[in-house]
Amino acid sequence: MATNNAQGLGGNSVILRLDIDTARMNFGLVANIITSMGGDIIAIDTIHIGHESSTRDITVNVTDAGDVAKITDAIQRIPGIRLVNTSDRTFLLHLGGKIEVTPKVTIHNRDDLSRVYTPDVARVCMAIYEDPDNAYSLTIKRNTVAVVSDGTAVLGLGDIGPRAAMPVMEGKAMLFKQLAGVDAFPICLDTQDTEEIIRTIKQISPSFGGINLEDIASPRCFEIEQRLKEELDIPVFHDDQHGTAVVTYAGLINALKIVGKPISEVKAVVCGIGAAGVAISEILLAAGIKELIGVDKEGILVAGEAYSNPVKDAYALRTNPNRVQGGLSDALQGADVFVGVSAAGLLKREHVLGMAPKPIVFAMANPKPEIMPGEIEDIVAVMATGRSDFPNQINNVLCFPGIFRAALDCRASVINEEMKLAAAEAIASVITDDKLDKYYIVPSVFDQKVVELLRDRVIRAAIRTKVARRIPKEYR
Amino acid sequence: MATNNAQGLGGNSVILRLDIDTARMNFGLVANIITSMGGDIIAIDTIHIGHESSTRDITVNVTDAGDVAKITDAIQRIPGIRLVNTSDRTFLLHLGGKIEVTPKVTIHNRDDLSRVYTPDVARVCMAIYEDPDNAYSLTIKRNTVAVVSDGTAVLGLGDIGPRAAMPVMEGKAMLFKQLAGVDAFPICLDTQDTEEIIRTIKQISPSFGGINLEDIASPRCFEIEQRLKEELDIPVFHDDQHGTAVVTYAGLINALKIVGKPISEVKAVVCGIGAAGVAISEILLAAGIKELIGVDKEGILVAGEAYSNPVKDAYALRTNPNRVQGGLSDALQGADVFVGVSAAGLLKREHVLGMAPKPIVFAMANPKPEIMPGEIEDIVAVMATGRSDFPNQINNVLCFPGIFRAALDCRASVINEEMKLAAAEAIASVITDDKLDKYYIVPSVFDQKVVELLRDRVIRAAIRTKVARRIPKEYR
Repeated sequence: MATNNAQGLGGNSVILRLDIDTARMNFGLVANIITSMGGDIIAIDTIHIGHESSTRDITVNVTDAGDVAKITDAIQRIPGIRLVNTSDRTFLLHLGGKIEVTPKVTIHNRDDLSRVYTPDVARVCMAIYEDPDNAYSLTIKRNTVAVVSDGTAVLGLGDIGPRAAMPVMEGKAMLFKQLAGVDAFPICLDTQDTEEIIRTIKQISPSFGGINLEDIASPRCFEIEQRLKEELDIPVFHDDQHGTAVVTYAGLINALKIVGKPISEVKAVVCGIGAAGVAISEILLAAGIKELIGVDKEGILVAGEAYSNPVKDAYALRTNPNRVQGGLSDALQGADVFVGVSAAGLLKREHVLGMAPKPIVFAMANPKPEIMPGEIEDIVAVMATGRSDFPNQINNVLCFPGIFRAALDCRASVINEEMKLAAAEAIASVITDDKLDKYYIVPSVFDQKVVELLRDRVIRAAIRTKVARRIPKEYR
Repeated sequence: MATNNAQGLGGNSVILRLDIDTARMNFGLVANIITSMGGDIIAIDTIHIGHESSTRDITVNVTDAGDVAKITDAIQRIPGIRLVNTSDRTFLLHLGGKIEVTPKVTIHNRDDLSRVYTPDVARVCMAIYEDPDNAYSLTIKRNTVAVVSDGTAVLGLGDIGPRAAMPVMEGKAMLFKQLAGVDAFPICLDTQDTEEIIRTIKQISPSFGGINLEDIASPRCFEIEQRLKEELDIPVFHDDQHGTAVVTYAGLINALKIVGKPISEVKAVVCGIGAAGVAISEILLAAGIKELIGVDKEGILVAGEAYSNPVKDAYALRTNPNRVQGGLSDALQGADVFVGVSAAGLLKREHVLGMAPKPIVFAMANPKPEIMPGEIEDIVAVMATGRSDFPNQINNVLCFPGIFRAALDCRASVINEEMKLAAAEAIASVITDDKLDKYYIVPSVFDQKVVELLRDRVIRAAIRTKVARRIPKEYR
């Protein structure tokens, strides 16, 4: 059953399910009404024909989403017709969920059953009991990641709760499997308490080879990730932080290549010191940036000030070496790079005019960027956003499938900073120098080279930093 | 990588992976050794040919499992050969786990991506946020069950821990999907604390439409199930208790039909008052049995005595109306039915001789029954065990897929006693009177009628007892 909320519909095509009382109404009249209200009937599926009524799915194209409301209103006023529901393609894709749990082999007979289940499975259980490492070869742990959220910071929607967060987590699970062959299962938690979240994840961890934290509000997300990293022996990765950081840095590697500035010599400003802003700053520092300034609602973060949370205090100590004070426009004076993970409209054309020559602007606020690309098209060297309808989308999908593929394949105990840097370099390297362009600094998420190159570089980094507990054959 | 534990191998066919130093050894000699030790080479797969060594998988049939150890010992003594591993078919079936998480649709392009993931998924999230019931239509909740264990009472193996319990839970997930189309995901918990288990399951519950508890030790399992039933709005079902009870009662319905005794007039003895024994007793009481006696290590349970746990105190109050005292042989005097869920060898031929005419014996201790069928073949009317190598296997697989199929389809808030009785009656009804026989009282787990009939009767029972929150179309 899909939603009836016609106002919420955005797609061009909707499906109306109608129960038609055949004695009082015939289908031809319904079709006329839909057409007269601006709808274009493109398909009719008969779902059920009964003695007194029939049920039909009418697929209707509309040019304006508002027409859907007009059509459904008109239909509801017709006697003898009941609008069962209105659904669009997005909702249809979600009916019953987007993933399933399937057996790898079919159980054909008693012999199969006794091997995958009792009594013979007992020998497999005992092999794991005798050597817990066998869990990696004999269970799904080897290839399975939990996608865990408490539903407190879902997309740009905020705290919508665990049930409403599920479609995002299921979408991630789809991408994990399709892009990198990783089995991912969504776990949405009915608690917002930091300690409870940590405890729950630890307790369910035996089934999994990795934990992808998702859409957990800041600053809680920092403690949860840090504690889990310390207390679990499988990789824990908060995608909103590190996925964003990896892809941002990947884009920046290529943007800096275009403008011919080495990262060690640029001045960058990160606007919005939440989960993503902190992680982006960390990867830039690990990459060798020297002059990095963080700006938040409280202005430029300066060492020694007392901020609203300890994460910002610590941030100020590691950044802004020249102790620049003031607001965003002060920070941006002479800066080479702006990275925004804050809010719509915060960046002005005047700010960009105050930056160093060939400015790079990554305006990644969602769904509306800090500045629209059209406003500064003529004065920026390279621009990126978080949106798919502009060039250079900084999209986490470029990172999480491949980085977990690598971590699982080399049984990494953690995903460390070196592995993240390697991931960013791998993503950047997908675009060869001859293809590199100000409108093409990050590859498409459908580019199959992304996961392949990322896996290779990240496994090498894990082996080099001695966090790989298994060396895949090709690296021996 | 499979186990090297050759002692543990049971199958007739093993696969030996050998690294052969080509300079020092040739394959023909290896083959001779295997053959001379009683092995029959049935396949050779070349995995890798290098400059100095080659890797081959040799599939070998043996008539005696002991021969495998002889062969592997002999191979390990040969210079120039390294036995990489020994694996049998059961272990091979478990490599990398037995289930996977797969997308229901493939994401072909940017448009698909934007519907199943950001930005369009946000509309689906909001539809659930506005009406949480939409989670049942727009997420996997509608069809997904968590199979949860703490690994404390796995098969007959006892407390082997959550990691070693995984193969059983994965096997259950396979059966859920193959037999009833239910998506089930194994969650093995790294805690044995009752409160922690309850809290963890509650917190992960938003993703699921039902909870199948599994292999949790008694008496902890009672409290966990009871509390979760009270505190969650999705069905919670401890399969070791209720699955066993349902299938036992199904078998008993047909056994009693064969001997022509109505359940209200029989005297039954349940031996072993743990998780399964209590649940079997409950379903028999719900089915109308009047004279039911429980026997445990402490002898016959009698009202008013103080037992080792409160579950047994409560049990004594509801059973043994005539306050019979003593041990198993006292209880069985004149009994019509013996149901054993205790330990190997507890039931003696003399006990059965003291039962009423046409005695029914369900000796379900695992892996060895309370008495072997051969010992009383001549004096019992009907006999069942938990084993697949005797007729009449009382196997939970007959119940859990179908009962959850039903509960999910009618969105039952609980699985109540009426639904369990209906499930048992449905399973029994698969065997029509003309087919019924002392050696055929329960259907095969591969009989497709099982889930079909079970679903129908259980949904009707849920509707009748007003726990169905959705009436499937065919029942409206």
